[in-house]
Amino acid sequence: MATTLARRQRSDGERSRQKILRAAANLATIEGLEGITIGRLAAHIGMSKSGLYAHFGSKEQLQLATIDTALEIYDREVVEPAQATADPLERLRLLYDRFLDHVERRVFPGGCFFASAESEVGMQEGPVKDRIAAIQRAWSANIAQLVREAQAAGSLPGDDEPAQVAFELDAYGMMGNVGFVLHDEPLYLEHARAAIHRRLR
Amino acid sequence: MATTLARRQRSDGERSRQKILRAAANLATIEGLEGITIGRLAAHIGMSKSGLYAHFGSKEQLQLATIDTALEIYDREVVEPAQATADPLERLRLLYDRFLDHVERRVFPGGCFFASAESEVGMQEGPVKDRIAAIQRAWSANIAQLVREAQAAGSLPGDDEPAQVAFELDAYGMMGNVGFVLHDEPLYLEHARAAIHRRLR
Repeated sequence: MATTLARRQRSDGERSRQKILRAAANLATIEGLEGITIGRLAAHIGMSKSGLYAHFGSKEQLQLATIDTALEIYDREVVEPAQATADPLERLRLLYDRFLDHVERRVFPGGCFFASAESEVGMQEGPVKDRIAAIQRAWSANIAQLVREAQAAGSLPGDDEPAQVAFELDAYGMMGNVGFVLHDEPLYLEHARAAIHRRLR
Repeated sequence: MATTLARRQRSDGERSRQKILRAAANLATIEGLEGITIGRLAAHIGMSKSGLYAHFGSKEQLQLATIDTALEIYDREVVEPAQATADPLERLRLLYDRFLDHVERRVFPGGCFFASAESEVGMQEGPVKDRIAAIQRAWSANIAQLVREAQAAGSLPGDDEPAQVAFELDAYGMMGNVGFVLHDEPLYLEHARAAIHRRLR
């Protein structure tokens, strides 16, 4: 009984932690990663500051845990569905389709969590900035690798530098996201879709 | 004498105001527009909070005046030099050259003032967000108009929608800026230059 109770308490704690982090990830796309201080998040979800400190200990730990949660959601919404196909060109198309789709469905209220964070932390120093920069770098490297594979398979012209193509695809996604959120206007996502379609023709 | 003194005081006041706003515009590209509260800016430039209140009255007035100052700098650094040519295609090239150049020279320490602001204020409401959105819209409309004129002059293919071309050019500029600042890596600006050159060929 004692063991079952302990397990249930751990599991309640885990659920509560996940709920807090989901709220923090949403809040970050509205008010920035700087906006998710323990005090503000406590007020936002109606929990005590001491309760939040028990979970995370510091603002930085809370921010890092929020980034992990956002990455899990991004993987589930964007990366994993694109693994439905082994064809590199099809996978590229699916990745950006899913990316723009998750922005349009407001999975995070303020659009792409990582696009917001990349703009915000550029001039900061420390583990939060390093983590966001590493995630951006890994994403672009993965896109460039898929471009390389699509070129090797003959589905994309071989004379473009893969890192250049990856930059351009990411540029369309980034601008589509920023325009959509700033003007609350899906036309920016349509422009992004048209540009990506054209680049992957 | 009294008049001269009054004039000198006004002019001292104006210089002081400009100095404050230049510091505020720099700070905004590091800590965001939210970062330029009267308290933080007072600490940053070593002036009293009451002195700053005398100049601006409220955080929102300070933010709006900072945006005006950033726009003047942007006009001087990017827009006006491109008016050296009347040819619409050449003017487009010059605008983006100057844009990427002003990012690389760190005219604002955190890259393009407006790219940062557009990402930051997307989910806000009020005059600051409206002003940033209007500036972004006016810039894109101007780019689309130049594309239209270049098409009419036969310097760009006529089958592309001008708003689509403007979106793609802005996307390269935006991603070049974000990548350059996030990774402190000029390669992103090179990617942007290559993409813009290709699109305006």
